[in-house]
Amino acid sequence: MQNIKCTIAYDGSTFSGSQIQPQARTVQGEVEKVLKKMHKDKPIRIYPSGRTDAGVHALGQVFHFKTDLTIPETGWHKALQSLLPRDIQIKQVRFVEDTFHARFSALDKEYRYIVLNTEEPDLFRRNFTYHSAFTYDIEKMQAACKVLEGEHDFTSFASTKSTVTGDKIRTIYEISCHRINKEVRFSVRGSGFLQHMVRIIVGTLLDIGCGNIPADELTHILEAKDREKAGITIPPEGLYLWEVNYEKETDNT
Amino acid sequence: MQNIKCTIAYDGSTFSGSQIQPQARTVQGEVEKVLKKMHKDKPIRIYPSGRTDAGVHALGQVFHFKTDLTIPETGWHKALQSLLPRDIQIKQVRFVEDTFHARFSALDKEYRYIVLNTEEPDLFRRNFTYHSAFTYDIEKMQAACKVLEGEHDFTSFASTKSTVTGDKIRTIYEISCHRINKEVRFSVRGSGFLQHMVRIIVGTLLDIGCGNIPADELTHILEAKDREKAGITIPPEGLYLWEVNYEKETDNT
Repeated sequence: MQNIKCTIAYDGSTFSGSQIQPQARTVQGEVEKVLKKMHKDKPIRIYPSGRTDAGVHALGQVFHFKTDLTIPETGWHKALQSLLPRDIQIKQVRFVEDTFHARFSALDKEYRYIVLNTEEPDLFRRNFTYHSAFTYDIEKMQAACKVLEGEHDFTSFASTKSTVTGDKIRTIYEISCHRINKEVRFSVRGSGFLQHMVRIIVGTLLDIGCGNIPADELTHILEAKDREKAGITIPPEGLYLWEVNYEKETDNT
Repeated sequence: MQNIKCTIAYDGSTFSGSQIQPQARTVQGEVEKVLKKMHKDKPIRIYPSGRTDAGVHALGQVFHFKTDLTIPETGWHKALQSLLPRDIQIKQVRFVEDTFHARFSALDKEYRYIVLNTEEPDLFRRNFTYHSAFTYDIEKMQAACKVLEGEHDFTSFASTKSTVTGDKIRTIYEISCHRINKEVRFSVRGSGFLQHMVRIIVGTLLDIGCGNIPADELTHILEAKDREKAGITIPPEGLYLWEVNYEKETDNT
C-alpha cells in the first residue's frame, strides 16, 4: 500500500464545511467520491489535517490516504484534478512514508484572515473577505497580537459548543496584523486550534482596533477562561487555512 | 404613477442570466419577486437596458419600472437592498420623467472584460475573470482595437443564434486594451451590442494578441460578414456590463 500526501486549495463558500456529512456537499465527500471511482467502487477514507467550517477557504489543506493503485505522483495530480469539481484545486501530490499522518504529523498550522476595510462592500469579494467600514488602529492591534503569542489556555477563545475533550491549552507561535492597500490582514500560526479560535481571536483584535474593547483587557480575557469575555466570532468568509507544516523528511518515501 | 430608474450590480455566476425565465434563477426574476412583495402581491414588470447571459456580471445595469407607492428615493434604495439577495446590489435609485426608458433612452453602453494572465489559475477568481497563461502582444491588440472602432456591420461578431431582427450595423465609440499587473483588460463602449458581440470581439483580439490570427486579417473578418471567420466566443466569467449612459436630464423629475 502506498501512503499519499495531498495538498489542496478550496473555495469554502460552496461547501457545507470540509468534513464528510450525509446529505451535504463537503470537501471530504467530493474527494472520497473521486477516489472511490478511481478504485473501482472501493471506498477510500481520507484523513485531513483538521476540519474547516462552512464558508472557510483553504490554500494549503493537507490530507493523506492509502492506495494499492500503482500510479506515479504526476498521474495522481492530473487524475484527481480532472475528476474533482472546479472549486477544489490540487496543489501537490507526494508519496510519503507509511507513518505519515496529515493530522498527527503536523508541526503547526497557519491561518489568515482578510478584512476588506472600505466604505462600500465589494459584491465580487463578498464570499472571500469580511467587509468592515470601521477605522482600525493597526499599531494597537499589533501590540495586542503579542499578548496572545505563546502557550495559553484559550477557553475564552473557543466555541462553547466545542466537542474537544481534554484541556484547551494551545501554543500560538506567531500572530501578525498589517494593512495592505484596502485590506487588513491577520496571520496566526500555532500548534493547534480550538473550534472558532481564529475567528474569535480576530474578532477580539478588531474590537480592540476600533476601540470597542480596551487593549489592556486582553490579559483579563485570557485569564477569565470565559467565552463571554472575548469579542464576536467573526464570519467565516474572510478565513483561509493557509498552510500546514510538517517535518521536511515526510515529503519523501 | 412614478417612473423609477434603478442602477444595480450583480454577480452573474449565480444566475441563469438576467432575463426572466420560468424555473430558473434570474436577476429580473429576483427583482420582480421583491417588487411584487412590496406592492401587496401585484406583479410589477421591470424594463432593463438589455439582457446579460448566464455568468456575465454587471456593475451598472439599469432598469426602470412604474409604481403607485409613495416612498422617497432613499426609502426605495434601503427597501430593495434589504429584500434582495446578497448577489444583487442596489447602486442608485432615481425618480425620472415618465418618458425615461432604460433601453430606448440609453445613449451608449460600456462593457469590460478581465483576463487573468498568469501561469496558474486563481481558484478564488474563477467566476470573475477568464484565465489564460498565453503571452499577449498588447500593442498589437491596441492597434486591432482601432480597426473595430466606428460604424460597421458586425455580422462576423454576432452569435448565429441571435434572434435580432433588422440589420447588424452597430457603432463602437471606443475599444481599448491594457495590462494592469497580472490582468489584461478590455473596455468596449458602443451604441448597442449583438448577442455575444463583446465576447467574440475580445476572443478575436486575444487570438490576434497571441498570434493565432494575423492582425491584418481583421478588416477581412469584418467584411466577410461570416461568424466562422472571427475568433472564439470567450467565456462569460470575465465579462462585466460596466455602465449604461443616458442624457443627464433623465436623472431628474
